[in-house]
Amino acid sequence: MKAVVIHSPLDLRVDDVPEQAVGTHDVKVKVQAGGICGSDLHYYKHGGFGTTRIREPLILGHELAGLIVEVGGDVDGHLLGQTVAINPSHPCGGCHFCLLGQRNLCLDMRFYGSAMRFPHVQGGFRQYIVCDAAQVFPVQAETSPAEAALAEPLAVALHAVSQAGPLLGKKVLVTGAGPIGVLTVAAARFAGAHSITATDVLDRPLSIAQALGADRLINIARDEEALRGGDFDIMFEAAGSAKTILQGIEIVARGGTIVQIGQGAEVTLPMSQIVTRELTFKGAFRFDGEFAMAVDLIDKRRIAVAELLTDTFHVDDAASAFEVAMDKERSMKVQLVF
Amino acid sequence: MKAVVIHSPLDLRVDDVPEQAVGTHDVKVKVQAGGICGSDLHYYKHGGFGTTRIREPLILGHELAGLIVEVGGDVDGHLLGQTVAINPSHPCGGCHFCLLGQRNLCLDMRFYGSAMRFPHVQGGFRQYIVCDAAQVFPVQAETSPAEAALAEPLAVALHAVSQAGPLLGKKVLVTGAGPIGVLTVAAARFAGAHSITATDVLDRPLSIAQALGADRLINIARDEEALRGGDFDIMFEAAGSAKTILQGIEIVARGGTIVQIGQGAEVTLPMSQIVTRELTFKGAFRFDGEFAMAVDLIDKRRIAVAELLTDTFHVDDAASAFEVAMDKERSMKVQLVF
Amino acid sequence: MKAVVIHSPLDLRVDDVPEQAVGTHDVKVKVQAGGICGSDLHYYKHGGFGTTRIREPLILGHELAGLIVEVGGDVDGHLLGQTVAINPSHPCGGCHFCLLGQRNLCLDMRFYGSAMRFPHVQGGFRQYIVCDAAQVFPVQAETSPAEAALAEPLAVALHAVSQAGPLLGKKVLVTGAGPIGVLTVAAARFAGAHSITATDVLDRPLSIAQALGADRLINIARDEEALRGGDFDIMFEAAGSAKTILQGIEIVARGGTIVQIGQGAEVTLPMSQIVTRELTFKGAFRFDGEFAMAVDLIDKRRIAVAELLTDTFHVDDAASAFEVAMDKERSMKVQLVF
Amino acid sequence: MKAVVIHSPLDLRVDDVPEQAVGTHDVKVKVQAGGICGSDLHYYKHGGFGTTRIREPLILGHELAGLIVEVGGDVDGHLLGQTVAINPSHPCGGCHFCLLGQRNLCLDMRFYGSAMRFPHVQGGFRQYIVCDAAQVFPVQAETSPAEAALAEPLAVALHAVSQAGPLLGKKVLVTGAGPIGVLTVAAARFAGAHSITATDVLDRPLSIAQALGADRLINIARDEEALRGGDFDIMFEAAGSAKTILQGIEIVARGGTIVQIGQGAEVTLPMSQIVTRELTFKGAFRFDGEFAMAVDLIDKRRIAVAELLTDTFHVDDAASAFEVAMDKERSMKVQLVF
Repeated sequence: MKAVVIHSPLDLRVDDVPEQAVGTHDVKVKVQAGGICGSDLHYYKHGGFGTTRIREPLILGHELAGLIVEVGGDVDGHLLGQTVAINPSHPCGGCHFCLLGQRNLCLDMRFYGSAMRFPHVQGGFRQYIVCDAAQVFPVQAETSPAEAALAEPLAVALHAVSQAGPLLGKKVLVTGAGPIGVLTVAAARFAGAHSITATDVLDRPLSIAQALGADRLINIARDEEALRGGDFDIMFEAAGSAKTILQGIEIVARGGTIVQIGQGAEVTLPMSQIVTRELTFKGAFRFDGEFAMAVDLIDKRRIAVAELLTDTFHVDDAASAFEVAMDKERSMKVQLVF
Repeated sequence: MKAVVIHSPLDLRVDDVPEQAVGTHDVKVKVQAGGICGSDLHYYKHGGFGTTRIREPLILGHELAGLIVEVGGDVDGHLLGQTVAINPSHPCGGCHFCLLGQRNLCLDMRFYGSAMRFPHVQGGFRQYIVCDAAQVFPVQAETSPAEAALAEPLAVALHAVSQAGPLLGKKVLVTGAGPIGVLTVAAARFAGAHSITATDVLDRPLSIAQALGADRLINIARDEEALRGGDFDIMFEAAGSAKTILQGIEIVARGGTIVQIGQGAEVTLPMSQIVTRELTFKGAFRFDGEFAMAVDLIDKRRIAVAELLTDTFHVDDAASAFEVAMDKERSMKVQLVF
Repeated sequence: MKAVVIHSPLDLRVDDVPEQAVGTHDVKVKVQAGGICGSDLHYYKHGGFGTTRIREPLILGHELAGLIVEVGGDVDGHLLGQTVAINPSHPCGGCHFCLLGQRNLCLDMRFYGSAMRFPHVQGGFRQYIVCDAAQVFPVQAETSPAEAALAEPLAVALHAVSQAGPLLGKKVLVTGAGPIGVLTVAAARFAGAHSITATDVLDRPLSIAQALGADRLINIARDEEALRGGDFDIMFEAAGSAKTILQGIEIVARGGTIVQIGQGAEVTLPMSQIVTRELTFKGAFRFDGEFAMAVDLIDKRRIAVAELLTDTFHVDDAASAFEVAMDKERSMKVQLVF
Repeated sequence: MKAVVIHSPLDLRVDDVPEQAVGTHDVKVKVQAGGICGSDLHYYKHGGFGTTRIREPLILGHELAGLIVEVGGDVDGHLLGQTVAINPSHPCGGCHFCLLGQRNLCLDMRFYGSAMRFPHVQGGFRQYIVCDAAQVFPVQAETSPAEAALAEPLAVALHAVSQAGPLLGKKVLVTGAGPIGVLTVAAARFAGAHSITATDVLDRPLSIAQALGADRLINIARDEEALRGGDFDIMFEAAGSAKTILQGIEIVARGGTIVQIGQGAEVTLPMSQIVTRELTFKGAFRFDGEFAMAVDLIDKRRIAVAELLTDTFHVDDAASAFEVAMDKERSMKVQLVF
């Protein structure tokens, strides 16, 4: 079958890969939608990010939905024929963090389409994928695979929101209106934020942030000063930019919290600001129970994820899809179909 | 009366300053012990720290205890003749943060011996000081003024501990065994930490950390490797050193917390570490209700603060006192008497 | 001017009372809407509740909105002519709980229309009321006084929700679909509850609960069994009924929380259930910062409080208004105009 | 081998029971100390408690320590010959609560010597017991089996303390100075309580509470009035008495928390007190990670559990041991040796 494989930076190919065997606890899913994520783009452009680098060919893709076409012997037969969102996260279940119920911090995580371990965990940009039955979440007939595949980034946003504690009555800032940023706007609105300000350097993504619940939009390329005096209780940093983080530290209120989602940057922090204003700076990584929550919110139409979807490409045009996904002026979320 | 006044970097004088009037809600305290703090040393050496600089002569001193010699008309007469610890903190009571009960974040704080506002708030290294009656906390006859004057740094340590959440069962690291570091060791021990590792570049302060409850001592000048694999739940950073903070980020466990107390450094943080390991980085600044708690713990001999006191100088030798206080090989806490 | 005064159980009169003087920090409000609350009905029917009893004539009313017609010398003149919601809560500002930022627990609270202290604090069912300027919250021109007067019960609901911790992803049960119950449904929906089940013994109030966001309605007079297996994470008890509380303890999930809002009942609790299932049972009383939040949510049309308003009476018909307000089959929220 | 078996109320026998097979993940422990707990006494006197009743003969005992005499094929051989504390708790690992990391709420718990499920889970009052290797915790040579067997009740106390949130600076009341009560005193002291008041109706247990860290003792049989005005932040209810709970609700401060540990009573609570003073009432059941913490605290001599041990009986005198354990004037903790 066909799969989208990264071999080295910018060397993305549609390869023929073998089908996988279906174990007794497994299901086989015909993949119908696969969203391209920022980390897929990092593999494409740079061959990795941070200290992670591809060391063997890697099938990309972890924002997935499809149709169950086969189930293992121990799996409930009612799953056959269901459209499902696929949770790409497979924690070990036995490590210190799994036992604490913090599975996203698992010491032995297998996450689709990731080069963090070697051999790499192959991803889901392929025609069929075999998963543990516990990884698939059926959606209603009214929910399209394209929407279901957005459960993964929405789960990331919901997890970021849950890292911030209760948002009820809080003044929220979301920096960076990429897919994770705008879904964080939606999640913060759903979680009861008092007001939500979204920032970006482009207008088009900001308009999607508005559609998902932002009260106020600031194009910081044009109007950096508009942030002054914001006095935000909580900032979600989804731009991954050192400059944005430093601006954030200035405008978050005393006692406030910055939840860092974007990973790209190194940033030189002034300790005295963090100390004397008692700021909290906190990472948010992937998700755990938030995946089921995301599927449910999409299914009940509580969060209008379809607003994000700007482009769809056939797997044979994967390279074009990746190029378009890198152009933030043109696209928000690009998905592949197979 | 005599007062210890900083005029410019290294220009420390014992000046004659006028007595203060006693208002109806005030008490007049004959100062009997005044501890030299790291911020006093910053004023002495550099004329300030961070963006704060002395712009007029400033009486230093905010770790104070003494004898009440006069009380205002509206103050309980029983205070007369009491030995008291003096809380140098005087929040406004009406701002957003005071109303939230977070008075250490007060937007209009008056804190003794601080150049953060102008005109500066004059400090307590003088023979007599007039305070609001709410700022003095009587101690028992068995508690010396020297011990009572350690309530202030102990309050800082207790506040840092309270910023970390419950310590019960937690593996704790305290970096930097200066007065705040060793008192943080004591406070973490009191608050139920499972184990406490203390680090410094000198052995002598580490031995005081041990006396106050550290289970394990690491001289990182000699044995940096000993930190590896520490897997600490909570780190209290009291060294104010960029290198220490970066080491901390490596050895704090996933999901762990770094409470930053020291202010000196700028530090370049790797975002991807903070994100993928979901670390929390959080400032701790001064104290609020912890001052009363500190006085009580000293009074009940629950924390052996006297271990810290290495040197006592007469006010006339203030310059020598400051020089000794800067020599970390020789001294831990230096106090003045008046 | 006219005021609605309770003299003894069922003896409700429209009396002529003197106007109040306007102090320098005060505003004078022409009252335009006054909602009748459950506690007003308790004074009317029983002369009080719990251990509280009227001991002198008491002007009822604490759900108030109106027009500012005069301002004191130290008050911002822009308030003149504004429609405002009136916060009936006036904490002392100096007690232990006020200093902790928990003003709703104030040891010396003055709350409009309450017999908890003596002399009683007179309420706002009158033509004009003089308040501290800090008690009034302007609303936009689009917000009617009738809506603004619903800020008070909405604040109660928001406070109950904030007592429960983060609702994101939680299965919520609200028992009792009176005004506080249905506003708690709205507040829980706003705060991100995963699902909300509302119960009552009447269908009409349940339909209002549905309009405000309940996913599922159970008339427990008809279908008590429908609650079984609910496995709720959080229950808000707004019925004040012993039977409802005991049912709740059965159907709240292990580790779950019951927030008690209704006060009427005594209830015999089985300790072994609370212990072995580690339930939390917790009171919610009035509000603090939630009043401002309520005004803002009404102003921004985020919570459709107008759904509650079923009946409006002129002050001269106050007795009829109270009778209608007691008839739960007919009315949800009854307001007076003056 | 010999085992202590309850057949029906007051019918306690030393029976001969078969040895158990050692699986590949198991260890076989020669039981050297077995403490009699309140629930053992309930089985003895009443055949159960709450809705739980013995329906077949049940080997009692879950406070256990002993020597490892055999290990299964997959178990680390270094365990052989070790003295260990035995964790009697065996959660399923797969239910909703286990996945949340709240294993004490496991929906399919197997807990030694408990009739909660049928067939009952047999206990450890026998000469040898076979456990999963994950249930045994080695102690140092200096720690006796008698001390190690106290890890279980200490874990219960530590869990109760962790249910209360941070104790630093809190005024604590512990009602009931039985073994769990006095260990809760010790755990609250370890966790940084500001002050601890212990109550009981007998003086002897109160003296042990004092030895473990209580600041103030009140014999409420003699001096009920002494509790008035206590203004406690946190109450741990370890008496399981309705009267004690009701007294507690009166004297806990507004916003305070009652952690219920004792299970015996039904109690009629005045809702209006819980609501208007915003009390939290919360169950604490068994323990999870606190078992390892308890073993460590005993091993490091941080909590002097040996103070509790008043009587030791040979297994052949089990009936006498149970009679003595019921006499609270005479005994605190009674253990069996085998």
